[in-house]
Amino acid sequence: MNLNGIIEFIEPDMKRVEAYIHRQLAAPVQVITEIFEYTVGAGGKRLRPALCLLSANAVGQVNEDAISLGGNVELVHTVTLIHDDIVDESHTRRGKTTANAKWGNEITVLVGDYMFSKVFVYLTADGFHPWTSLLAQTTTKMSAGELLEIEFRRKWDLAEEEYFRLIQYKTAELMAAACQVGGMAAGGSGPEIEALKEYGLNFGMAFQVTDDLLDIVGDNQRLGKPVWNDLREGKVTLPLIHALETAPPADREQILQLVSQEQIPQHDIDTLISPLICRYGVEYSRGLAADFADKAKAAASSLPDSRGRKALIDMAEFVVSRNR
Amino acid sequence: MNLNGIIEFIEPDMKRVEAYIHRQLAAPVQVITEIFEYTVGAGGKRLRPALCLLSANAVGQVNEDAISLGGNVELVHTVTLIHDDIVDESHTRRGKTTANAKWGNEITVLVGDYMFSKVFVYLTADGFHPWTSLLAQTTTKMSAGELLEIEFRRKWDLAEEEYFRLIQYKTAELMAAACQVGGMAAGGSGPEIEALKEYGLNFGMAFQVTDDLLDIVGDNQRLGKPVWNDLREGKVTLPLIHALETAPPADREQILQLVSQEQIPQHDIDTLISPLICRYGVEYSRGLAADFADKAKAAASSLPDSRGRKALIDMAEFVVSRNR
Repeated sequence: MNLNGIIEFIEPDMKRVEAYIHRQLAAPVQVITEIFEYTVGAGGKRLRPALCLLSANAVGQVNEDAISLGGNVELVHTVTLIHDDIVDESHTRRGKTTANAKWGNEITVLVGDYMFSKVFVYLTADGFHPWTSLLAQTTTKMSAGELLEIEFRRKWDLAEEEYFRLIQYKTAELMAAACQVGGMAAGGSGPEIEALKEYGLNFGMAFQVTDDLLDIVGDNQRLGKPVWNDLREGKVTLPLIHALETAPPADREQILQLVSQEQIPQHDIDTLISPLICRYGVEYSRGLAADFADKAKAAASSLPDSRGRKALIDMAEFVVSRNR
Repeated sequence: MNLNGIIEFIEPDMKRVEAYIHRQLAAPVQVITEIFEYTVGAGGKRLRPALCLLSANAVGQVNEDAISLGGNVELVHTVTLIHDDIVDESHTRRGKTTANAKWGNEITVLVGDYMFSKVFVYLTADGFHPWTSLLAQTTTKMSAGELLEIEFRRKWDLAEEEYFRLIQYKTAELMAAACQVGGMAAGGSGPEIEALKEYGLNFGMAFQVTDDLLDIVGDNQRLGKPVWNDLREGKVTLPLIHALETAPPADREQILQLVSQEQIPQHDIDTLISPLICRYGVEYSRGLAADFADKAKAAASSLPDSRGRKALIDMAEFVVSRNR
């Protein structure tokens, strides 16, 4: 199944998720609705709802719970983007002015809080469900991950396992939860939910390692070349970590000296940093991303054969092969 | 029972709440623990846990649930203070440097998010409880209240009912929830919980109207006179609303002109604004605060006679009679 095949397979249910999200945009204060519509309402890849629906399909049927859980997982993701843009003082995200740049930090912090509370109103509205405490724990890990990212900024001697802990908390845990809650909604068995968790965690790791790689080797549509945003923001990612760990001392010193400049000149990136990191860090990182994707596929393969399982396996293939 | 009597009555249980809060300060990222200790760990009036414990006492016994709910209500309150200080760009709160001024907005937003998630981890950890969805709904209302506060800033024609809606969401709802969850933990009946809600809502309204009054007539220890912070921040409170509604046209025009200055000179406050607002708005506001306190007392009086009920009634008396 190629990506179009996957999209076609879940499209009717994705439309239901979209309708669910739009029903959640109404709020008692006008600016909340405006910011909701501007952020979550404006669309996006909806990768987490897709994982939720495919997981439900892999162990049973998509029902109303799977639809609303898919929507709420996307709302949690949106809150982290909104608060993240405040943290990074970002003015644009994917070419669009951020909410904080448009409405100011103050309102944007509070709208994030409101959206987050609303997810918990949904989660706690009608008695106990197994997904409720899972999602609460996941959001805690995500906040810890965001804080690790700040703590690790410009930490040039970051260890590989610190980087993995960071991206697990920041990215992979929510993707794992998206898979688990989809499976739970569809009535999956204990071992099936465990397999979906394993799938989602490894899928998330593969996704983030690839994302970090694309920042330095990807084909940015606007620039026609990689953007190197992470390095400019002091984010230490796997290719740099591995380059610093494996380059001979002279090259290692040069990389360190170049990346630790307060403002890195574009010329240094193009002519010095890029060749060095590509030489010592890129292939290794691609290999690790592929390993994570393989682990995700192996986890999904333990599920009974179904169209949902097939789509999960193909998604894991796709996530490491994309080039933007 | 005077305030000391109330404090003595619940002191052993308040110490258990304090110990509970301190057990929650451990976190996987060092800076989270530091900020937790600096904010919630540094103490405070702990008014909301006190309401929770007194309510439990009024309808039954304080048990472990009442202790941990008291602690979690205080954590929710602390998150709102932390995010509020970011919103107001405050550098000090009660004479102490704020977390955002000390650690920066970015970290402080995320530590607030972390603390908030942790409350929901507690709330959803062991099956369904009636207080879980109540607290989720309350936090949603609180975010909406904070946003109303921004929306209503420098809105000089704010109506009294808009002001009441704002302070209900911002302040009274959490105090009502603190009372209700204490009562629920102690096994109170439906009508008892309803009475505690009525008590807490009216107590909270009396508290906030009085707080807003003290900003313009209270004896600030540092200044030796009222601080008038709300007006400087463009917050429209009851005394101003009533003054603008009831002053003769000439005085009304003068007030409007004075308060809508971009920067209000201290001299204008001392010699012009203060006398006008005191003439037209203060007695009326005191009267409404007393009315709310009376309604709170009436609600508590419907509970069976007990030391807890007596303390709730005395607290409502105290909340409007304090002068700082």
